[in-house]
Amino acid sequence: MIIDIHGHYTTEPQALHQFRDKQLAGLADSGRKPSSEDLGITDEQLVKSVQPQLDFQRARGSDVTIFSPRASGMGHHVGNEAIGHVWSRMSNDLIHRVCTLLPENFAPVGQLPQFPGAPIENCIPELERIVGLGFVGVNLNPDPSGGYWKSPPLTDRYWYPIYEKMMQLEVPAMIHVTGSCNPAVHFTGAHYINGDTTAFMQLLQGNLFRDFPDLKFVIPHGGGAVPFHWGRYRGIAQDMKKPLLTEHLLKNVFFDTCVYHLPGIELMAKVVPVDNILFASEMLGAVKGIDPETGHHFDDTKRYVDQVKMLSEADRYKIYEGNARRVYPRLDRRLAARGKPGKKAA
Amino acid sequence: MIIDIHGHYTTEPQALHQFRDKQLAGLADSGRKPSSEDLGITDEQLVKSVQPQLDFQRARGSDVTIFSPRASGMGHHVGNEAIGHVWSRMSNDLIHRVCTLLPENFAPVGQLPQFPGAPIENCIPELERIVGLGFVGVNLNPDPSGGYWKSPPLTDRYWYPIYEKMMQLEVPAMIHVTGSCNPAVHFTGAHYINGDTTAFMQLLQGNLFRDFPDLKFVIPHGGGAVPFHWGRYRGIAQDMKKPLLTEHLLKNVFFDTCVYHLPGIELMAKVVPVDNILFASEMLGAVKGIDPETGHHFDDTKRYVDQVKMLSEADRYKIYEGNARRVYPRLDRRLAARGKPGKKAA
Repeated sequence: MIIDIHGHYTTEPQALHQFRDKQLAGLADSGRKPSSEDLGITDEQLVKSVQPQLDFQRARGSDVTIFSPRASGMGHHVGNEAIGHVWSRMSNDLIHRVCTLLPENFAPVGQLPQFPGAPIENCIPELERIVGLGFVGVNLNPDPSGGYWKSPPLTDRYWYPIYEKMMQLEVPAMIHVTGSCNPAVHFTGAHYINGDTTAFMQLLQGNLFRDFPDLKFVIPHGGGAVPFHWGRYRGIAQDMKKPLLTEHLLKNVFFDTCVYHLPGIELMAKVVPVDNILFASEMLGAVKGIDPETGHHFDDTKRYVDQVKMLSEADRYKIYEGNARRVYPRLDRRLAARGKPGKKAA
Repeated sequence: MIIDIHGHYTTEPQALHQFRDKQLAGLADSGRKPSSEDLGITDEQLVKSVQPQLDFQRARGSDVTIFSPRASGMGHHVGNEAIGHVWSRMSNDLIHRVCTLLPENFAPVGQLPQFPGAPIENCIPELERIVGLGFVGVNLNPDPSGGYWKSPPLTDRYWYPIYEKMMQLEVPAMIHVTGSCNPAVHFTGAHYINGDTTAFMQLLQGNLFRDFPDLKFVIPHGGGAVPFHWGRYRGIAQDMKKPLLTEHLLKNVFFDTCVYHLPGIELMAKVVPVDNILFASEMLGAVKGIDPETGHHFDDTKRYVDQVKMLSEADRYKIYEGNARRVYPRLDRRLAARGKPGKKAA
């Protein structure tokens, strides 16, 4: 089967956006606060809203998408912490409903109510709640300031309480920033990619996985700039007297395939060990158009993976399914419970 | 001939660092201010200080290096604007002396006394001064806040006065950040690469080259994440209704080859037009070690370019020499004046 580990709910019903508008308007004028947290969205509306994703799954040949709230919509820097808690819960609840209505097609991943400067402990109740609902992972934002990088690096003890809870609950985190409120830094074109690169470098500098040997992070968008600069990172690690990247990071850090052209995916396959690559398309995400050079959607990443000649069938199984089951053990169990066990690992 | 367009003076005499220490100590205790701006560095000391670079030029087969002050040393966010003016002038003067003493080996590029929030006009006198001394280009920092991205994007009218002066003086700019004062963002492992990616995206979002059709920018470190995500950038430009990147940016934006492994350089050669790639190694720069996988220095980038099979001899001429002469017309004239004219462009 083909597991796409990176999809966001970017086709949310308008009622969600209307709620958010009222919620934020209420900061300036309390008379505009939403009167209810019941969005009034029906199951039928939810199923209808994800038809584009279902159509792409069918057309491109993927089976199940790990589905989380719109990344730029998380808006951790927006408003205040209390509002963020309501917003995270509401966003996660919609994901839960979609994945419950269409369990063959979607598996849920949640957002956290992070807020700049707030203790990360404040996110633990929501993490416990969503894993209790069946979520298989969580998105963790290394920069809740939205483009100004005001949080300590991911290796800092600030983050340890959430890692401890992740370990206890057996969930990995995708390291994913939200929108940028910095006019110098475009969200999908700079902040997302910089977020990936910065997070990798934070992990390279530190020794986090000595303290959390089982912690697992997925760095999206192919790892930002990292595979392109693989020699630079191997060299910097060596200059810093760190172990080889395979030892230092690659038991814990994984990259997805959200890279929107064949040469990029070919590069990944050359330098990143196949055990560290997880298939993903981010659809419907950052780039929606058709590549005039190929006649296919830029984000139809399965086409690129299929074209990489150096991959064996065993490699492809890992990228499309095996690695995802290993990194997301709750996904593996969810699929097995639905009669879809994976192959036994070699 | 082989022109390396990206070298920094990272082997400066200790007297320069001692001056900087006193200069910054003087902010806290005026009794510690340096008593003189005469560093007392002899020509002999200068020539000796660049022996490592000369040895690498000989060993690796490059002829001339475009030489600028240490990038992380620019420190635009450090101290105050007045101190930055003294520091820039002093740093540029050392570059001038090295390149005057060894004109066959080095061509000078300068730094600007940028300061967060200060008008960019304040940098014009230093730019005029160094071009008067024979400098062939300048380094422009898109984030003088040192990792917090507090300046407007490069397409903003804030920057126009320096572009107008660059046009008048016929000098290109390398877009190069300095050190990071943000503990979340490592300088060579994240800030440099993010700076490249962010600058490219700023240019993609805007229409700067409509106003400055002859302005030329070099984005170092292979363009940050850009070639790896070439499909993403083509797709985002298309979604934004921009022209093709070739039309929109590539008459004005160039990338160097500071990418420290063969697969990265191969990717660049596949996706970036050969007219937009300029040879560079950044030596002695971000990565100083020997790659255990090849037995050669990571930053011996000529080896990678030489190994890319798809490049013709004409392509190699462009990457090693022709493009640099075109992007840096003052370099072309400097070389021609020393009896080294380039080939006529096709």
